[in-house]
Amino acid sequence: MSFDALQEKIIACKNPTVVGLDPKPEYVPPHIRKACYEQYGETLEGAAEALYRFNCGLMDALCELVPAVKPQSAYYERLGWRGMEALERTIRYAKEKGFFVIADIKRGDIGSTAEAYADGWLGTTRVGEQDLSVFDADCVTLNGYMGGDSVNPFLKVCKQTDKCTFSLVKTSNPGSGELQNVTAGAGDTVYGLMADLIEKWGAGTEGKYGYTMAGAVAGATHPDELKQIRARMPHTFLLVPGYGAQGGTAEDVQYAFQAKGRGAIVNSSRGIICAWQKTGKDGADYQEAARNAAIAMRDDICRFITIE
Amino acid sequence: MSFDALQEKIIACKNPTVVGLDPKPEYVPPHIRKACYEQYGETLEGAAEALYRFNCGLMDALCELVPAVKPQSAYYERLGWRGMEALERTIRYAKEKGFFVIADIKRGDIGSTAEAYADGWLGTTRVGEQDLSVFDADCVTLNGYMGGDSVNPFLKVCKQTDKCTFSLVKTSNPGSGELQNVTAGAGDTVYGLMADLIEKWGAGTEGKYGYTMAGAVAGATHPDELKQIRARMPHTFLLVPGYGAQGGTAEDVQYAFQAKGRGAIVNSSRGIICAWQKTGKDGADYQEAARNAAIAMRDDICRFITIE
Repeated sequence: MSFDALQEKIIACKNPTVVGLDPKPEYVPPHIRKACYEQYGETLEGAAEALYRFNCGLMDALCELVPAVKPQSAYYERLGWRGMEALERTIRYAKEKGFFVIADIKRGDIGSTAEAYADGWLGTTRVGEQDLSVFDADCVTLNGYMGGDSVNPFLKVCKQTDKCTFSLVKTSNPGSGELQNVTAGAGDTVYGLMADLIEKWGAGTEGKYGYTMAGAVAGATHPDELKQIRARMPHTFLLVPGYGAQGGTAEDVQYAFQAKGRGAIVNSSRGIICAWQKTGKDGADYQEAARNAAIAMRDDICRFITIE
Repeated sequence: MSFDALQEKIIACKNPTVVGLDPKPEYVPPHIRKACYEQYGETLEGAAEALYRFNCGLMDALCELVPAVKPQSAYYERLGWRGMEALERTIRYAKEKGFFVIADIKRGDIGSTAEAYADGWLGTTRVGEQDLSVFDADCVTLNGYMGGDSVNPFLKVCKQTDKCTFSLVKTSNPGSGELQNVTAGAGDTVYGLMADLIEKWGAGTEGKYGYTMAGAVAGATHPDELKQIRARMPHTFLLVPGYGAQGGTAEDVQYAFQAKGRGAIVNSSRGIICAWQKTGKDGADYQEAARNAAIAMRDDICRFITIE
């Protein structure tokens, strides 16, 4: 699905947020973990099954409230192929539940390697005479350090499948400026030049809301820079990490949006999926806790923007 | 294994090259493909098994000749979890055969996400009371666009496990300069600043040959820049892509090496694994063809350097 579909889901939910499905076994409520370890042992298989069941429970609780989920590949790769199998099932379940699915993979490679990633994550893989869907996400995150050679193969698949991408511009981590904020070009910055490249790579792929298939990642933790990036990338849908635990506030993230609260989506991962750890209970309430945290986040952000 | 171990293997083989295991089903000789499709159908499982058997045959043919292999994750992810399972088996087989294994994953993420990647690819994953090995490569490739926050979690695991990394500096693709060659800092370039960052992140992790655990990727297709990078990164082991099909020559790659032919390894993927497609035969000779191509590459590069 394209950014048109994402924008429509955001409008329908009146909620411009995405929940990061970044589960480690210790984030899974004890009763789920216990059941899986009893069934499969304390194994990678048991841990992967625990992540999957936890994800399903979260998505059941959130599907009428939140438009999108963003599984982070690292937490599945960490469990090897068992984890990747759980990730495939998670994506499938998310789509059944009506979520827009952003696979947070931050891949960046070139030529036939980039094509292989694009096939696996967004398109189809040719095997013999068949074209098979594999991870089949709606959208992926990318790292464009290698240049357009690393993003264009994904955009090619996006055009065939009506899907989309988010490439890193300015990230939310404390050390993001080490390279990204270096002075570059004529009084510019590395991230500013990356912003221009992404607008250029995406040009001509605008959907009905005016956004190209080449979205960008711009962190909530640097609100002045977020404001600049928003102005500099008028055709670019933004994915905004860094709200909550990392220090970004609703006041900060408002700058990511254009008129009518459009053109951006704000992520929270642990703030939602680990909300049960703050209720002082045993995790049996993890769905309610996630739902309450998602409502609080939505309401917090919507103090500063109105979605139409 | 660290760069000390890699350097020793290179000296023992008198061969500073690494074979990229980047197989697509169409690179697999027909007799292997046919056997796998007959057994498993034209499925992701059948394709993954074909890649694995092809890899094993290649490694059987190359293990006394070539010190290292570099499986590219994209070609396995393209087949979903079935492909990742074949990748796990490929890495295990490679280590049994004595290869130094570089997992070409070009990951780049931060905080607990970077830790999750580092656990899965180099370290161990905690499940219940156990620490389990997952992909267990000797080395990974990384993308440091997000800054030290994305590389340091890997270096932490490297220190615990005596392993190592290669982060992108200047890549071999035609469009690599789009961001990497932009003027940055005081009359410098983006890739030049990245080179300095990598030397800095690695400082204090030098092994007996003087190389840190933070290696760098520097393409063969820009020999003048390769020369500059070599001079600027005296403590950094270099991984050099771009030899052969991409246009880099033995004369070009010589600049990656320090005295005694040390501190660098040159990659070839399709030039070796697809060599059988150029013999005019049906692929039954793929092992001999790969071996001949690997010998030719070694001899070509060793016209310009002497390994001691």
